[in-house]
Amino acid sequence: MHDIGFIRDLAIVMLVAGAATLIFHRLRQPALLGYILVGVLIGPHTPGPLVADPRTINDISNLGVVLLMFTLGLEFSVRKLRSVGAGVLVAAVAEVGLMLWFGYSLGEWLGWSRIDALFLAAMVALSSTMVASRMLAEGKLRHQPFARLVVGVLVAEDVMAVVLLTVLTAVALGGTVAADAISVVWHLGLFVVVGLILGLLLLPRLVDHVAGYGRDEVLLICVLGICFGACLLAASMGFSVALGAFLAGAVVAESRSSGRVVHLVEPLRDMFAALFFVAIGLKIDPAMLYHYIGPALIIAVVVVLGKTFAVSLGVFLTGHDARTSMRTGLSMAQIGEFSFVMATLGVSLGVVSDFIYPVAVAVSVLCMAMSPYLVRSADRIVDGMSRVVPRPMRSLARSYSEWLENLRPVDENAVIAAMFRRFLWHIGVNIALVVTLFVIGAYVNAHNWRFFSQFGIDRDTRHSVIWACALFLSLPMLIAVYRKSDALGMLLAELGIRERFAGQYTFAIRNVLARIIPLLTLVALALLVVALSSAILPPRGVALMLIVAGVLAALVLWRGLVRLHARLQAALKDTLSPDGPTALPSKSTEKQDGAGAS
Amino acid sequence: MHDIGFIRDLAIVMLVAGAATLIFHRLRQPALLGYILVGVLIGPHTPGPLVADPRTINDISNLGVVLLMFTLGLEFSVRKLRSVGAGVLVAAVAEVGLMLWFGYSLGEWLGWSRIDALFLAAMVALSSTMVASRMLAEGKLRHQPFARLVVGVLVAEDVMAVVLLTVLTAVALGGTVAADAISVVWHLGLFVVVGLILGLLLLPRLVDHVAGYGRDEVLLICVLGICFGACLLAASMGFSVALGAFLAGAVVAESRSSGRVVHLVEPLRDMFAALFFVAIGLKIDPAMLYHYIGPALIIAVVVVLGKTFAVSLGVFLTGHDARTSMRTGLSMAQIGEFSFVMATLGVSLGVVSDFIYPVAVAVSVLCMAMSPYLVRSADRIVDGMSRVVPRPMRSLARSYSEWLENLRPVDENAVIAAMFRRFLWHIGVNIALVVTLFVIGAYVNAHNWRFFSQFGIDRDTRHSVIWACALFLSLPMLIAVYRKSDALGMLLAELGIRERFAGQYTFAIRNVLARIIPLLTLVALALLVVALSSAILPPRGVALMLIVAGVLAALVLWRGLVRLHARLQAALKDTLSPDGPTALPSKSTEKQDGAGAS
Repeated sequence: MHDIGFIRDLAIVMLVAGAATLIFHRLRQPALLGYILVGVLIGPHTPGPLVADPRTINDISNLGVVLLMFTLGLEFSVRKLRSVGAGVLVAAVAEVGLMLWFGYSLGEWLGWSRIDALFLAAMVALSSTMVASRMLAEGKLRHQPFARLVVGVLVAEDVMAVVLLTVLTAVALGGTVAADAISVVWHLGLFVVVGLILGLLLLPRLVDHVAGYGRDEVLLICVLGICFGACLLAASMGFSVALGAFLAGAVVAESRSSGRVVHLVEPLRDMFAALFFVAIGLKIDPAMLYHYIGPALIIAVVVVLGKTFAVSLGVFLTGHDARTSMRTGLSMAQIGEFSFVMATLGVSLGVVSDFIYPVAVAVSVLCMAMSPYLVRSADRIVDGMSRVVPRPMRSLARSYSEWLENLRPVDENAVIAAMFRRFLWHIGVNIALVVTLFVIGAYVNAHNWRFFSQFGIDRDTRHSVIWACALFLSLPMLIAVYRKSDALGMLLAELGIRERFAGQYTFAIRNVLARIIPLLTLVALALLVVALSSAILPPRGVALMLIVAGVLAALVLWRGLVRLHARLQAALKDTLSPDGPTALPSKSTEKQDGAGAS
Repeated sequence: MHDIGFIRDLAIVMLVAGAATLIFHRLRQPALLGYILVGVLIGPHTPGPLVADPRTINDISNLGVVLLMFTLGLEFSVRKLRSVGAGVLVAAVAEVGLMLWFGYSLGEWLGWSRIDALFLAAMVALSSTMVASRMLAEGKLRHQPFARLVVGVLVAEDVMAVVLLTVLTAVALGGTVAADAISVVWHLGLFVVVGLILGLLLLPRLVDHVAGYGRDEVLLICVLGICFGACLLAASMGFSVALGAFLAGAVVAESRSSGRVVHLVEPLRDMFAALFFVAIGLKIDPAMLYHYIGPALIIAVVVVLGKTFAVSLGVFLTGHDARTSMRTGLSMAQIGEFSFVMATLGVSLGVVSDFIYPVAVAVSVLCMAMSPYLVRSADRIVDGMSRVVPRPMRSLARSYSEWLENLRPVDENAVIAAMFRRFLWHIGVNIALVVTLFVIGAYVNAHNWRFFSQFGIDRDTRHSVIWACALFLSLPMLIAVYRKSDALGMLLAELGIRERFAGQYTFAIRNVLARIIPLLTLVALALLVVALSSAILPPRGVALMLIVAGVLAALVLWRGLVRLHARLQAALKDTLSPDGPTALPSKSTEKQDGAGAS
């Protein structure tokens, strides 16, 4: 109790944060800006340092990132991503890609090293979820059509942030961009898919069960346990803790009580986010900022113009009118928390130059300070633009919009497209499950071999046992894939071979096509299983015998396995169904707003 | 991001805490018990230590105490304390006094040093607010008559905990118990009164204003700023941060939005409380526990029997029936968070022996584990007791209850007693305000003399200026005291001198009495002012002139000052009025339940 050095530092931070949030709320500026500035003021670099030892503050401010990513995950959810639509996803990918290219080129133009330019690219690519969604809420713009787009693009960007973090880590730890990026994305994808599927099967039920106790503190501590447990798991696999927290949030979001969880976690997120941003300010030496004000200003201009342009273009190309696109772009013309996370990553890995961190902060502060004005004068900017843009370009834009509108499937085609998508989705999920099983098998094989050798099991037997388990557990999924592809084949045959083309052969050709597709699927599945099991393939004889046994089992138990799969599918579907969990529509809007708390 | 040593430790702690809360909820045991036990399990003293560096965890677990005391303060409130009634306060003081005596005697009997015995006394004196109120909530006993008593005694104990903490610090830092205790209690009382009055005038308005923004995160960060600011203030004055947090909570509790504040702060409290209790476990070496199991068992027995007896006796003596008293006692037969706070204080001051901390933990764990069984079988225990107790004692108890019942003022007397109390309360508050002003004067004099000397103001002039300010600012309050005591004198005269006793002299005697009381008050006030201003008394000539000026000002401005005081009083009353803030009755029960979250 009397060793209050840390508590004193924290108390000072919270006191100035409280003052900052009040003052910046009155000034109608983002609170984040206030946190960073008071951080600089009380930091060790300014005369009369108030915070003596920023180390511990820095330590616990990292909790801010974990809780931030967790709540972002809570607001992201497979359901919401589906409702946002594929268009927004495409727009976000295009926009982030463009910004990455801008950033990298800018870094090269400034004469920075390759790795500095790479981190600059990552820093300018992602908008600030906190700032953008806060401004929507404060400007009472939440129900405008573009607000939905902003939230959608932000969610998609959050996912890409996780990918970028992981890729950057791998690149920074040595190796070429291309090869590493592919390997990392492959591993990452695997981790995410395995984590999501296992998590979705277990955790939402657990959370709902705990929520049934009716004790907020039990629910909170359990959810935090899940969040930090996922962080541990991700870290032990070599991924960032942010990824773990994000996945944990996305999984918990599928529980019926996710609204209550958001409510409980938000105060924690707000407190640690404040700490996080003050800690950013604490690290800043104003002299350093002054030194690099030139590049910072250039980068800030590139961010504001580039982001507005890239987002507007992405949104426009995926079929929205020019005004909506511009407003979406202007709302996202800033960088924020992710830039700090990226810069911190570079610094802690020791790969980027010293000036990257202060430049990142300076650019973010400049963009954040500009952001409210951009959003407030969006209408005027759009009007001004439309007067400046030459007439041919405008008519080109209009005809593009019309062409896109015509492309949309209508009536019967829309129904068939929906069926088609559903079949592909089912096949994808089942293949992902099979991959999961074999990956778990490979993992068990690689890590627990001492356990097996304890029982005198040699390498071959071990391989055979694990492979057999994976194969037999995959049977329901494999059968499901076969059945779905059968149905898909028939659908395709029906659609693809119209009577007017094939005439009298219609029926025969349809029949062949309907057979060929499941047959091809079978071959593809066999190849997949072999490829997956390369690490744990038993001796050839055993493998053959096991395959025969598997096929026999599949034939004999066909009905049972189909039923088993139906039950599994129902369990998963129950968790993901749009009208099942969360229930209240008001809850989901509430969750969207929550995205912007800081 | 990659330096995740601390996050890894924290993640492990939160993961096991989540598991513990689930398991112990199923076992119907207090979660605190689970936290402590898993803390021991993952601590550095057990084989296979999981938490590598408990230092940072320990650092931030201290936040648990701050937030705990803050929420206790939020649930305590002047209003609630008044509704609990003076009887409960008397019962709590009697009970804690008895337990302090038991604890000290036990320490001496065990052959411990004086200071060890003193800390033991403090450790066993206070029940666990978390455990007791949690059990009430879980056993659905909240609406039983004794539950109100338990909550009342717990609130009173919380206040005494603050006093004990401060007294123990002073005693431990050298000096005798008696002299130091008095000086500490005096300073403490002054700090509390000054803090409460200034706080009550400013902070509830500020909080309500901020709450009006309708942004939870702004409100939360502001309230945390207030809480930690009060901690800083208390620490800089030499008091514990716990006291600052408690006072901040008590002040914020008077705002209209205290319900929302409780809601926002609770998740933080729950998370840090979990950390706090796991950190307690982390510090425990099971070998040490085993070594001191004998004393721990003896102390645990004394706590359970002593607490039950002391609380039951206190409650019974203040006029409740035997069954209610026993149930109240059984609900409070445990020690908890305060014991750890006291033990930690002793350890960090370096004054107690090494074994105190593990003994405190062992005793608390034993008591907490026993507590649910005691509460659940309270009825059977009471029945058993009533069969064992000899008949004469029972009839004695009954006649005591009846006698007490007869003492209560009824009808006309009740109204007069209420008026009487109100006058005394007003006089007390006004005198407190006067004291506050002079204390601020003394503080300004002691700390800011460099500021004065800058302007070439010498010691005498400084004293004169400060004293004059304090005196003139006190005038409205002094006049108010005089007027109230005038009214009190008339009331007393009317009541005290009944016609049947004084006969024909009734009127004359009444007149004398009604004059004497305000006159005595004036003299007392003059003495008070002189005593208060001993540090800043100006030279005699100046003082006399100032007094004359003051009296003249009082006479001339009498009406204006009365009006000014009325306005001040209205401002304070508005903050404290029972039907003003908080408004909804359901809110206040909600706040009571909140007391028990962990």
